[in-house]
Amino acid sequence: MSIEKLLDDPLNFWLGGGGPQGDIALSSRIRLARNLDGIPFPNQARAAELAQVVEQIRKSVSSLSSVDGHSYLFIMLEQLSPLERAVLVEKHIISPLHAQYPKDRALLIRDDAGVSIMINEEDHLRIQCLMPGLDLTAAHALADRIDDCLEAKHDFAFDEHLGYLTACPTNLGTGLRASVMLHLPALVLTQQIGRLVNSATQLGMAVRGLYGEGTEAVGNVFQVSNQLTLGASEEEIIGNLYSVVSQIIDQERTARQLLLENSRDALIDRVWRSYGVLRYAYSISGNEALAMLSEVRLGIDLNIITDTKPEIFNELLVRTRPNFLQKMAGQRDLDEASRDRLRAQIIRDKLQGGK
Amino acid sequence: MSIEKLLDDPLNFWLGGGGPQGDIALSSRIRLARNLDGIPFPNQARAAELAQVVEQIRKSVSSLSSVDGHSYLFIMLEQLSPLERAVLVEKHIISPLHAQYPKDRALLIRDDAGVSIMINEEDHLRIQCLMPGLDLTAAHALADRIDDCLEAKHDFAFDEHLGYLTACPTNLGTGLRASVMLHLPALVLTQQIGRLVNSATQLGMAVRGLYGEGTEAVGNVFQVSNQLTLGASEEEIIGNLYSVVSQIIDQERTARQLLLENSRDALIDRVWRSYGVLRYAYSISGNEALAMLSEVRLGIDLNIITDTKPEIFNELLVRTRPNFLQKMAGQRDLDEASRDRLRAQIIRDKLQGGK
Repeated sequence: MSIEKLLDDPLNFWLGGGGPQGDIALSSRIRLARNLDGIPFPNQARAAELAQVVEQIRKSVSSLSSVDGHSYLFIMLEQLSPLERAVLVEKHIISPLHAQYPKDRALLIRDDAGVSIMINEEDHLRIQCLMPGLDLTAAHALADRIDDCLEAKHDFAFDEHLGYLTACPTNLGTGLRASVMLHLPALVLTQQIGRLVNSATQLGMAVRGLYGEGTEAVGNVFQVSNQLTLGASEEEIIGNLYSVVSQIIDQERTARQLLLENSRDALIDRVWRSYGVLRYAYSISGNEALAMLSEVRLGIDLNIITDTKPEIFNELLVRTRPNFLQKMAGQRDLDEASRDRLRAQIIRDKLQGGK
Repeated sequence: MSIEKLLDDPLNFWLGGGGPQGDIALSSRIRLARNLDGIPFPNQARAAELAQVVEQIRKSVSSLSSVDGHSYLFIMLEQLSPLERAVLVEKHIISPLHAQYPKDRALLIRDDAGVSIMINEEDHLRIQCLMPGLDLTAAHALADRIDDCLEAKHDFAFDEHLGYLTACPTNLGTGLRASVMLHLPALVLTQQIGRLVNSATQLGMAVRGLYGEGTEAVGNVFQVSNQLTLGASEEEIIGNLYSVVSQIIDQERTARQLLLENSRDALIDRVWRSYGVLRYAYSISGNEALAMLSEVRLGIDLNIITDTKPEIFNELLVRTRPNFLQKMAGQRDLDEASRDRLRAQIIRDKLQGGK
């Protein structure tokens, strides 16, 4: 296990497919925000204080292995090139903010990337646990044990009345953000997604695109997460999200069945055309690729395309991102046109060879 | 050799590919308009007179075989169903006008469909000879011998001063219409086709789409023919057309080279995407199919696609036409959606199996 392997492997275990409702729920994530008591939050801390946080947490690495038997890697972000950090962002392991200011920032990561801890992002600690499919309970149980393990070694900033203290008040209390990544092509195709996003928002959820706040839902992939962290227990927050997400999944399933019943031919045509273009295009943009990969994945899920594995979608979701492509290309600096050609080539090779 | 075979075979010999400049010139056609002396033109003739023309020409069938050693078939159009006649139109063997009023109309056709004689279309006789590629000379030589053979048996309406008399003055004189079917995708892609059509028109040529007057140039296939039949010898008319068509072919070749030099990647992408869609689409309209088949054919001609035969284009050009599809489907009456699916299926089978 090395950072190289983590960077080059397109599929983290939690993106490998499977898991409960894995045809629609790609992955579940639990994130806990924690801060060390007595040290200013990162946005207020001096360099020496940030370094102090890093040093304290670094000492916890060995004890983490006792939680789950995995090995953990400690990486100072400055050791990585900007490109390597960008790849970690594309792989949803660190945030764009964390990648942008690497000085005195670090990452603690499990050998399979199922757990990652950003050090000195917005908070001193952002503990993330990921599971394939809709499995918030397992992700939460793991996050809980990692939290306990760290809390046994460090004093976390905590207020009896407010709960865990965080840099941003939106994280105050539990410091917990739970989110599920959903593939919702049928709700998009049938134009029900707008209404659904509104309902979810009214129920206190945030709905975002594949790459966090402000990004469009390319490839029909949506992240649904809780907005509130305060005034409810961790179990209540997770229960609420689980309930909303389950309803969305049911509606996606209904929309898929309706598409099959009412527009079967058009759907089959659409899915196979996307397959044909992906299989033979010589150049393709990232967004077009994701849009077509999404339709192919829908085709696989609905047994329209039967000789291609669903994981191809998850894998190509990562492999066709700009920085991942640049890393593959090595020294050669890719302009947009070269990137579009390399992307098309990777998809072609996969679809022509991976049958 | 039977009419069934003629109807069901998608490729007449002159559409089988090859011939001079066969990568751009699909086929060459010579048509002679002739009328029997002393009988009114078809649009003025009574039924009995039309029947008289048919009977007189029917007697010539056996002598035609002596011209080229082929066997000829004599068919009363009323013996054919409307669908069968429509298929003959799609195969460029008879005209829409001829198909529309079958009573007392007939067709004399060579076993390979390289010669066809419409009886009682606009004129009593419309002798057509077809050759693959740009080969007006061979088509004309053949038409000439057939004309001589028929003239030895019948008196044609002829005026010393005007030449052959025809129902429409635009055919007066030689009664000759020469035309070449050209595949001009690069001139269309580079938007030079409009200028070229104008120039050709100014030089006395008519430029039409794949299915004669008033049809769009679907599939980037154009028919170029002479407008004038009077005041020039047959050789001059053919020489002029040959010269104009040769220039158009040169310009198409130049445009293809420029595309390869200046927009190679975009061209490769375009060609392969069309291939991918054709190979996997579940439903496709006739015009979309022709547009994409044209791009695939261009890709084959430019060695971008190397494992597919160029004749696939010519064959699918005919096989994907509505009436040909309906004939394939047999008793079952095809609506538009079923036709689009059957068309896509035929193309899929051909591209997936015919490699």
